[in-house]
Order: sequence, then C-alpha cells, then structure tokens
Amino acid sequence: MPCRISSRQGFFFMKKISIAIHGGAGTILRSNMTQEIEQNYVRSLNDAVTSGWNVLTDGGSALDAVTETVRSLEDDPLFNAGRGSVFTSDATHEMDAAVMDGLTKNAGAVSLVSKVRNPVLLARLIMENTDHIFLCGAAAEKFAEEHGIVPESDEYFFTQARFDQLQKAKSKAGIILDHSDDKQLGTVGAVALDSNGNLAAATSTGGMTNKWPGRVGDSAIIGAGTYADNDTCAVSCTGHGEYFMRAVTAYEVSALMKLKGLSLEGSAWFAIHESLAKLGGKGGLIAVDRLGNVAMPFNSEGMYRACFTSGMDEPLIAIFEN
Amino acid sequence: MPCRISSRQGFFFMKKISIAIHGGAGTILRSNMTQEIEQNYVRSLNDAVTSGWNVLTDGGSALDAVTETVRSLEDDPLFNAGRGSVFTSDATHEMDAAVMDGLTKNAGAVSLVSKVRNPVLLARLIMENTDHIFLCGAAAEKFAEEHGIVPESDEYFFTQARFDQLQKAKSKAGIILDHSDDKQLGTVGAVALDSNGNLAAATSTGGMTNKWPGRVGDSAIIGAGTYADNDTCAVSCTGHGEYFMRAVTAYEVSALMKLKGLSLEGSAWFAIHESLAKLGGKGGLIAVDRLGNVAMPFNSEGMYRACFTSGMDEPLIAIFEN
Repeated sequence: MPCRISSRQGFFFMKKISIAIHGGAGTILRSNMTQEIEQNYVRSLNDAVTSGWNVLTDGGSALDAVTETVRSLEDDPLFNAGRGSVFTSDATHEMDAAVMDGLTKNAGAVSLVSKVRNPVLLARLIMENTDHIFLCGAAAEKFAEEHGIVPESDEYFFTQARFDQLQKAKSKAGIILDHSDDKQLGTVGAVALDSNGNLAAATSTGGMTNKWPGRVGDSAIIGAGTYADNDTCAVSCTGHGEYFMRAVTAYEVSALMKLKGLSLEGSAWFAIHESLAKLGGKGGLIAVDRLGNVAMPFNSEGMYRACFTSGMDEPLIAIFEN
Repeated sequence: MPCRISSRQGFFFMKKISIAIHGGAGTILRSNMTQEIEQNYVRSLNDAVTSGWNVLTDGGSALDAVTETVRSLEDDPLFNAGRGSVFTSDATHEMDAAVMDGLTKNAGAVSLVSKVRNPVLLARLIMENTDHIFLCGAAAEKFAEEHGIVPESDEYFFTQARFDQLQKAKSKAGIILDHSDDKQLGTVGAVALDSNGNLAAATSTGGMTNKWPGRVGDSAIIGAGTYADNDTCAVSCTGHGEYFMRAVTAYEVSALMKLKGLSLEGSAWFAIHESLAKLGGKGGLIAVDRLGNVAMPFNSEGMYRACFTSGMDEPLIAIFEN
C-alpha cells in the first residue's frame, strides 16, 4: 500500500520503495559459523543494504541503488565479487557482472575481467555508452581503461582466505569444481524498486573457486542470473551458475508472473524449489516486484541476504533459514 | 499425426520427425537479389537441411541432426558463421555458437573464438566433456586444441565479400554497427525433433560486421539465441543480438507454450512480432515443437530458411516472405 506523507502543500501519496540484496548462497556452514564471523557478515550486509536504501529514500533511481549496493559489496573482501573474488584453477581472478534497467530493459554485462575494481560499474558503463550489451575479457578491460577506470593490481584482489580455499579445492578434487565444506556459490546482487515505480537488478561475482579460466557463469547472462522488467519484477541470482543458465532462472520468475499470473513469492519459490531443484541446481535468488514485495528463496544451506522496504524501521538481515 | 509404417513384425507407429534451419535474417535485399545468387543460397540451404534430415531418417538423434546441419552451414562461405564469418572492427573473426539438448537440458556454448573451424562442434564438446556450459576466447581455443581440434589459419576464414562489407560499414558509420544496405543479421541455426521425441537446437555466428572485438551476442546465450526443452520446443534465433538478449527470445517461445498454453506458431509469432518488435529489434527465429510443428517467423526483409518434416516430399526453402 502507498504511504500517505504530509508535505507543505498538503498530502500526497508516496509509493512504496524496496531494496533486497544478497551476498551469495555459498554461505559458511552453520556448523562452522562463530558469533564473530556472523557479526562481520551482518555488519557488511547492513552497510550495503543501507547504502542502497539511502539512494532510494533520497529519491534516487532503482538503477543507482542497485549499482551503489553492488559496488559496496564488491569492495568488501567478505563476499565473492570484486575484492573478495575467489581464484580460478590458474590462481587468477576472473569476474563477471551485469546490470539491467526494468524501465528501458537496457542491460550491460561484463565477463572475465581481472583488473577492474568494480565490474558492476563497468557493466553499467557498457549499458550506457555502447550499442552492445556484453563485453568480455581483454576487450572489456580496454574499454574500461578508455573510460577512465584505472586497472587494479593483482594484490588488490588477493585475500588469504580465498587462496586457502583454492588449495583446499585443488587437493580435494583436482580440476573439478569445488564442492568442499564451504560451498563456493558466492555472488553478490541487489534488486530495487524506486519511488517512480522503476525496477532494476545488478549481480557481480568472482565465480567458483577452481573454475576453469574462460568459464562464463550466469551472473553476466541476462535472463539467467540477472533480469528486470517494470511490468513484473527485478531478479538477481546466486548459486551454481550452470544450472541457472539452463533453467534461465531470473527470466523465469518474470515469466511466471507475466504469463501465469503468479505472485512474486510464488514465482520465485517455483523457480528455485521446482525448476532449479529438478535440474539438481543449488542456490537462491532475491526479487522485488513493482508493488515493492520482496522474495528471497534458496535451497542451499543459507544465503547472505537483507532487505529494506517502506514501513520497516530497520533492514531485515539473515544468513540461514529463519 | 504419427505415420503407420509397415515392418516385418507387422505395423508400428513412427513418430513425426522434423528439422528447420536458418541461414540468418540478414538476407541480401530483395532488390539486390539475382537469380544466380538466389540459386546458390537455395542450393546451400537444400544441402544443409537434407544433411540434417538424413540423420533423422537414419534414426539419429535431434542433437546429432542439428550439430551436423550447423556444421554444414559453418563450412559454407555463403553464411555468416564458421568459414563465412564477418569481420570485427579490428578485421578479425570472433565466432560464437551454442547447442542445447531438450531431453537433458544440457547445453554448451562458446564465444569469441577465432581459429575454430566449427564452433558448434566445440560447443558440443564443452557440453559433453566439462562441468561448465560456456567457455570464452583463448581458454575455449585451448580446450579445443586439447581435444584434438586443429586450429585453422586466418586465411581459411577470409572471404572477399565479408572484407568488402567491413570496408563499407567502416566508411558509412565509423565504429557503429553495420546497418548498411545488406543488413548483417547473419547467423546459422537448426532445430530438430527426432523419432524418439527428443528436441535439440544449435546456433552459430560470426556476429555483426564491424562489431567491437570482445562483444558477445545472443547466439551463445542459452535462453536468448538458443533454447531446447522436450516439454515445449527447440528454438534458434537470428538477428540483432542485443535485442534478443534483452527479450530472452528463445526461452520466451518456450515459456509462452508452457505457461500460457499458446501453440508453437502463436508463441513464436508473439516473441518476434510483439516482444522483440516492441524493443525495436529486427530478426527472426526457427522453432520446432514436440509434435513436429515448425514455425519460422521474422520481421526483417527476409530470412534464409528451410524445413523438412514427415509427410513432405522435399524440403520447403525460402528467403523472403512467400
């Protein structure tokens, strides 16, 4: 419901605003979680969702809110995106990101970049400054430099914890994907509804620990990991990307609302617990619809997540179920 | 309707088989078409659709039929894929391809490869021999070589006509996409239904003349340019890829059938003439459903296309409307 807000001119109706974020479905196992680690994650999620919420309450666009939130999560070494990106099997970093504007259905995406501090900003630059949607690898890095994005050193992206995860993955499973204790289904993402009724989604990731160099995941794929349409919803996914690509998960949520008339909650639930699960996929998603409803289903042990919508005094932040 | 076929054991029902192919929505303008050029295209389309049809009539799988057909189109310099690929703005070749199996919903995709004679075979190799779906650039080339695919020379991919198109595009529009007389919306693709009721789709392209190096189009994107699901249909798209990515066109056809209960024809028509057109996109698609129905809508001036289904004496081959 719209909120009635007083103004000097009398009363006007302010539409609901909403933001939801995720920090990946590859959470630390509940059994390995300490109070200290949990507090760190909660603090980071709180900071990120608040940064996006502030954009919305200042009258900013959903597009700016999701970009700012994902940028904040990329800069946080706790999450598998930007600074905290996991390592490929070659001990390099290859990051993917995408952004989509629900109003225009314009989109930008970038994949396999190693030197870009904030892949989400590069994805947005591609959306707003080229006739293309998706640039990859060295060409994307070159485009970034030409537009004033200064390349970061390898040291910036190095975190000891991620390097240790790579060694663990390699020792356990050779060149196979990491399915060790702490599942690396990490990604960050944000979806938002602004006061003009516009929706947007953004996703960013370092991919999976020990993935092959050159592997493109779902985060950068419009329809798979990221989608936004003002008529339905905005969606950002996290999990084992190949399954989200095969199920076209982000777009499926929108299609279930548009073509089947399901609610956001029902659509998001079905996409994760029926379609994705049927293929054997693990992960989750966050979604917001044009009424400001939020859904955050997952079928992994946990999903770092938070949301903030009109009427709430403070953000809801959670990691595991309940 | 299934056909009743006699066998030594008596009678059994043979299910309908179907194949449809396209050679791109970027046809030569009707005003520039000569009888000789038309005959060349018709001959090539006939050869390609027949090669896939022969796989199906020999009891082969839809997956084998679409792979073989696209391989044949890639080897034909008339079409913008494999040997006939257009040039990027750097006068290089960067090819994309994807394949999807409707039975398992497994998929393989490759993007930005320059030395691979048949990108569709590489996409299939990725599908069948890795845990990933989508490999890109140098890593994909390396994987190809490791699996015995001998790199082709640049000369193999050079065609004078494509090089002339690049010069024309450059002289007309600088670094902008080519929208000259002969629109370069070229791609090749195939969709098929086999006698076991399995569907498959494959797509391959050289992209757009004068595109930026590093640009990924819709052909390699599962859901955008390529999709197959035994429950609904198999789809391969051709056209201005960025619009197909934003509309998630291939998957939309499947979603309209599954969620809205539309026919294949109605779904394919809506995806091209409503959803894609609303965004301003140009192109077309080919699709076959689990009953063997075929749809081949386009909103460009023409689309090189052909189909062959049970009950037909010879393939239907067409370029322009009617």
